[in-house]
Amino acid sequence: MFKVLKTDGKARRGHFECAHGPVQTPVFMNVGTQGAIKGAVSAHDLKQIGCQVELSNTYHLHLRPTDTAVRQLGGLHKFMDWDGPILTDSGGFQVFSLSGLRKITEEGVTFASHIDGRRIFMGPEQSMQIQSNLGSDIAMAFDECVENPAPYEYVKASCERTVRWLERCKREHDRLNALPDTVNPGQMLFGINQGGTYPDLRVWSMIETAKIECDGYAIGGLAVGEPTQTMYDIIDAVEPHMPKDKPRYLMGVGTPSNIIEAVARGVDFFDCVMPARNARHGKLFTWQGTINIKNEKYKLDERPISPVCQCPACRSFSRAYIRHLLSAGEMLALRLCVLHNLYFYNELMAHIRRAIEENRYDQFRAQYSQRLGEPAV
Amino acid sequence: MFKVLKTDGKARRGHFECAHGPVQTPVFMNVGTQGAIKGAVSAHDLKQIGCQVELSNTYHLHLRPTDTAVRQLGGLHKFMDWDGPILTDSGGFQVFSLSGLRKITEEGVTFASHIDGRRIFMGPEQSMQIQSNLGSDIAMAFDECVENPAPYEYVKASCERTVRWLERCKREHDRLNALPDTVNPGQMLFGINQGGTYPDLRVWSMIETAKIECDGYAIGGLAVGEPTQTMYDIIDAVEPHMPKDKPRYLMGVGTPSNIIEAVARGVDFFDCVMPARNARHGKLFTWQGTINIKNEKYKLDERPISPVCQCPACRSFSRAYIRHLLSAGEMLALRLCVLHNLYFYNELMAHIRRAIEENRYDQFRAQYSQRLGEPAV
Repeated sequence: MFKVLKTDGKARRGHFECAHGPVQTPVFMNVGTQGAIKGAVSAHDLKQIGCQVELSNTYHLHLRPTDTAVRQLGGLHKFMDWDGPILTDSGGFQVFSLSGLRKITEEGVTFASHIDGRRIFMGPEQSMQIQSNLGSDIAMAFDECVENPAPYEYVKASCERTVRWLERCKREHDRLNALPDTVNPGQMLFGINQGGTYPDLRVWSMIETAKIECDGYAIGGLAVGEPTQTMYDIIDAVEPHMPKDKPRYLMGVGTPSNIIEAVARGVDFFDCVMPARNARHGKLFTWQGTINIKNEKYKLDERPISPVCQCPACRSFSRAYIRHLLSAGEMLALRLCVLHNLYFYNELMAHIRRAIEENRYDQFRAQYSQRLGEPAV
Repeated sequence: MFKVLKTDGKARRGHFECAHGPVQTPVFMNVGTQGAIKGAVSAHDLKQIGCQVELSNTYHLHLRPTDTAVRQLGGLHKFMDWDGPILTDSGGFQVFSLSGLRKITEEGVTFASHIDGRRIFMGPEQSMQIQSNLGSDIAMAFDECVENPAPYEYVKASCERTVRWLERCKREHDRLNALPDTVNPGQMLFGINQGGTYPDLRVWSMIETAKIECDGYAIGGLAVGEPTQTMYDIIDAVEPHMPKDKPRYLMGVGTPSNIIEAVARGVDFFDCVMPARNARHGKLFTWQGTINIKNEKYKLDERPISPVCQCPACRSFSRAYIRHLLSAGEMLALRLCVLHNLYFYNELMAHIRRAIEENRYDQFRAQYSQRLGEPAV
């Protein structure tokens, strides 16, 4: 289902076939946590801004409207009217980052809902059942994501358990996919590498994870507190042990620079809430660097956010207008800024793919890796 | 510039030519206070939902980003990328309803900005200058809008002053339109009838207002506290004194029922923030009556808000999805609900126009005047 079409150094240009269509990699997935993208952006808008894969959150949808409701309504694709590929995370990350009280056992995690404090249990089987009900194209294995840094012994025990959980995920996933009334019988499963900032645990975790046949493999638990160079070093350590014929997904990462650097290290899939969050604060990406649209100097600026951008905001509106909307507290500002930043990320990935195809990824990396995150001059 | 194409009783089916294109009346204008429609709705979206005239607020745009900035940026049409007709109100209503301290003299009003408390003076000339800078197609005269009820002597003095202000507006408007660098030389001016809830003052005001040649005439100061029947009685009292060959605009009104009843009394133009405000609270209009989409009973409802509606929300999304988005605090909920309610209002006006054309307005009125505001069964 995954084919590497071309390599340039360790960078890979791939084609991944999902139940809801193909994905050209490297790819950045656009995050719609609760079945909608923050900033009043719908699935239809995603089509306009070059999104290939929509990512929704198992934890949020399980709590509200509940995955059984989504299933009764025909699955997440129908619910949000998106006919392209969907990846759902496992809920693991949110269980550990959003909920208050939680208790981890071999069986799974008991946690308190961030909405009403209700106690909920989630283990590998429950996570698979929820994601099966949602009917996503790619389900993520249920894992524990530990903060960095964490004590070695804790991380060791945790990533060993995550491997055992993957075995249970795989078994349950296979069972659910084979049921006659399953929402998406073509749903795939990605395993997740953990191990904190300890290269030996990371390598052990990757070797063990790769022994379990999955449709793709993710590196989780990065960009959660460690220095950027540590993240790159861990990718470098793990990558040789990742199956070459399966896609690799670096979870929750990152800045344009992070993505460019990770692609150079052999990563294919990305997701991050940062471009949308930055957008809501007026921090916008351009090929000359970032601009803060709230700045007084844009008050009379008739130019679009980026003169070369073809996003719905840049095609029609001036910096002055968007700055005004943001100052005036108009929701339309957030929508336009989010559309712009997501379009920029999707376009960044298209440029990355072309650079790999044309064997000039090093040159692309040298030109843009630093520049894109820095303020435009 | 205005032609009554057909009458049915007192209801009028008209054609009004603006500098930015024709308007078919009766018409409901869609409110974009600060140059954007609440709910992340852009001028482009307005095209999709059948909007004919966009309405922006002089007071808000004068304070932020300032009308001189809008002028430098090429006028309001270019600023918000809307090429259809725009009406700007005079600022009078907001000066009286939004600002704190204010002092009225014959010259005009001194008031405190609701943003930073800064003291600002606005009189008829300033209002015309601001609206000229914005470059709207229809400028409204600067008036005093008194709350209902108010003492007779106060209302009498106020509406006499409003007539004197109209003379000054007319003079300044003519002067500004003739300047070589005016933003929209085709800008028109509407005069405003006032007089509170006193029929004799209303009639006097209308007779005096009509003596001043304007492109249309509005009834202001209604739907500000008086009973609905009082509003209808005042329209009945004023209407015979309104020029038949000019459009009539009932400012800030109202519910579907109010609009249907006012059309039956000879009114052509309407505007109201209510459909958008209701939308943001989940109160949605259908031809069977209103529904509150937050209701638990819609949790698994796969139907669109209204099965016969062709708005962007109804074409793609279920009640269950929109209810979920609203519960989850997703901005997309607000956008979809606002698009739906504004589409409904624009469609309501299209049905009203057709009913007049086909000489069955009484029948339409009997069928819908009560039903549309009541909960759907």
